[in-house]
Amino acid sequence: MTSTLPRANQPSVADLLTDATRTARSSVIREILELTEAADVLSMAGGMPSPDSFPVDELADAVTRAVTQRSAVALQYARTDGITELRTLLADQFAVARGRACGADEVVITTGSQQALDLIGRAFLSPGDTVAMEIPGYLGAIQAFGTQNPRWLHVPVDDDGLDTDALAAALAGGERPKLVYTATDFQNPTGAVLTEARRRHLAALADEFGFIVVEDDPYGAIRFDTLRLAPVSTYTDRCISLSTTSKTVAPGLRLGWLFAPPVIAAAVARLKQATDLNTSALAQSVIFDLYARPDWLAQRADRLTTFYAPRATRLEAALRQAVPGIDLLSARGGLFLWARLPGINTTALLPTAVAGGVAFVPGGAFTTDGATTDSLRVSFATLSDADLETAASRLGAVVGTLG
Amino acid sequence: MTSTLPRANQPSVADLLTDATRTARSSVIREILELTEAADVLSMAGGMPSPDSFPVDELADAVTRAVTQRSAVALQYARTDGITELRTLLADQFAVARGRACGADEVVITTGSQQALDLIGRAFLSPGDTVAMEIPGYLGAIQAFGTQNPRWLHVPVDDDGLDTDALAAALAGGERPKLVYTATDFQNPTGAVLTEARRRHLAALADEFGFIVVEDDPYGAIRFDTLRLAPVSTYTDRCISLSTTSKTVAPGLRLGWLFAPPVIAAAVARLKQATDLNTSALAQSVIFDLYARPDWLAQRADRLTTFYAPRATRLEAALRQAVPGIDLLSARGGLFLWARLPGINTTALLPTAVAGGVAFVPGGAFTTDGATTDSLRVSFATLSDADLETAASRLGAVVGTLG
Repeated sequence: MTSTLPRANQPSVADLLTDATRTARSSVIREILELTEAADVLSMAGGMPSPDSFPVDELADAVTRAVTQRSAVALQYARTDGITELRTLLADQFAVARGRACGADEVVITTGSQQALDLIGRAFLSPGDTVAMEIPGYLGAIQAFGTQNPRWLHVPVDDDGLDTDALAAALAGGERPKLVYTATDFQNPTGAVLTEARRRHLAALADEFGFIVVEDDPYGAIRFDTLRLAPVSTYTDRCISLSTTSKTVAPGLRLGWLFAPPVIAAAVARLKQATDLNTSALAQSVIFDLYARPDWLAQRADRLTTFYAPRATRLEAALRQAVPGIDLLSARGGLFLWARLPGINTTALLPTAVAGGVAFVPGGAFTTDGATTDSLRVSFATLSDADLETAASRLGAVVGTLG
Repeated sequence: MTSTLPRANQPSVADLLTDATRTARSSVIREILELTEAADVLSMAGGMPSPDSFPVDELADAVTRAVTQRSAVALQYARTDGITELRTLLADQFAVARGRACGADEVVITTGSQQALDLIGRAFLSPGDTVAMEIPGYLGAIQAFGTQNPRWLHVPVDDDGLDTDALAAALAGGERPKLVYTATDFQNPTGAVLTEARRRHLAALADEFGFIVVEDDPYGAIRFDTLRLAPVSTYTDRCISLSTTSKTVAPGLRLGWLFAPPVIAAAVARLKQATDLNTSALAQSVIFDLYARPDWLAQRADRLTTFYAPRATRLEAALRQAVPGIDLLSARGGLFLWARLPGINTTALLPTAVAGGVAFVPGGAFTTDGATTDSLRVSFATLSDADLETAASRLGAVVGTLG
């Protein structure tokens, strides 16, 4: 081992990457959707909120105040778990929501809720550990937990959200997941809302079988016709609850948080320190400024409803009229409609649709194994009214040629 | 496996954490230093820049412009690798610095350079892989790479930076690190600047032995008496170069970046997508606004020199006068002085010093194994002139009692 190798025999820089990193690829679906940026394609595939929904004036005020009046805090490093006054405010609000006390030591501010998912995966999962993932489910959770190379247990989703009876059957059959992931309100991609009975059932299963529920709620502020139910955390302390400002305020701040039992919050914060030291103190100061105002969040939710509900209605009507055979649910909140095209492989349909000037996300994107389905997700968030109508017509034309 | 266990037999939530996460602890040194926040302690232990150095007015202008005039970009999600115009600007600037071309596809914007370290560790290191770490060296790099459970190869640092002859000897002896970490300018904690000869030597070793140099440069804009040398990346493409705005502008933005060969940059960006989707578009827009102004960076560096150099001089003089037996180097840049107290275990000294109203970071904090040393790091960044003098006197009194 003391002789040196000539340079030509050295591994390339790419050869030094771990196997998992080197072989990771962007999905085929992602590559197709990237085509939509260049061409004359009306894309309903995005997951972004509308820039027209951003509270620009209020943000401009808050950010100016943070920089000019609180610079020693807002422009400095912060505690890894987050600025104490923000954690206290969020804990107080969550205590009301779940009907039991919540301390600031149960809160960790994260760089978007994506980082919360990443930290949870790293904190709990060793390779081969089982994660119960609702399918179809959020791709970002699949990616974050996926970096730990877990074993996946698929749990179906229906109109009432995660099918807790199916989960119970798997548990009775011997499955022992460490984590069970579910998005409770306007689930991505189906739009389902987890019923109160299922929230209670899921919590009871967590207590009985010893797993942790990861309940994610990015869309909870955008609700069209439904009251907010108590979170799963109301019924069990074996729960980590995620939230984010990306849809409630704007994604550009990259600010989210998690609520977890103190011992878990402390472990996640230790891991976060090695990951990015802390989340932007500027973003934390801005969100504290807004969220601490009386009624600000309630008024903001009203505005989001007023902004998005008519778009959802318009796209739903246009799709029903233009797309032969489409089977869809009315959106109850969030940014998406979920639809079936019975008998049609939507993954195979996508390139044809893009060629026809319209894009969607096929249902096969929302699973761990890329299995194809006849489902698709469309966003009503970012296209104009006229473009939503045109997009529906184009999709109808593409589907019509298959008949 | 079909029977269910009663709840009392279930693991606690903490038992579900991975072994590494559950057993990770804050260091003893960190716990002692946390005491300094409460009591009447003058702390020179911090790593933060002075809030008085922040360009508040320029930031207020830039952030207001970003929110009000570019909201559709600055408040939205961004590409995972970063906003193209910012990556292009940084690539153009780095091409000048290293004297060879640099494309935007060699840049990934990160959530501070801490995230760059975390992503590099995850991209390259499997458990047991060797990392050559300069010792004493940056604790954040030790923490970030440490989450991958690597094997550490210690390489000493002297007044000329990383001892490349010592590294060469280890390589000749059969060591094959995947990564070699070094902070090139005003190294944390010693303040050393890696000489041009050593930069060339390190690059040649990377080419010969096939490792990747991770060159970190957070303090490069704060220089008192030295010209900027070409980065290691000038001499080899087996190099990842890190930078950050935390000391040049302000830590509150959490904005850094890395330069890497395109295949590495793409792999790091894929991993980043699972980690936090993207770095704040607001922070990216603000930094683009500032860094794109002609001469802004040069003028900012002048201001930082004017701000910090007199503080360094003052603390150095006060320590030399007040602390018996102290052996220290004049700071050439950065935020810190590095000193020896020959024959004194500085880790053991710290609690006594805190009781005496002064805090520093013992040299034992800057290694992978906590080995004690007779060295210590003090910051001249955040205390007032009078407090720097008092802190030096208090340290002198504490050391004097040991005589």
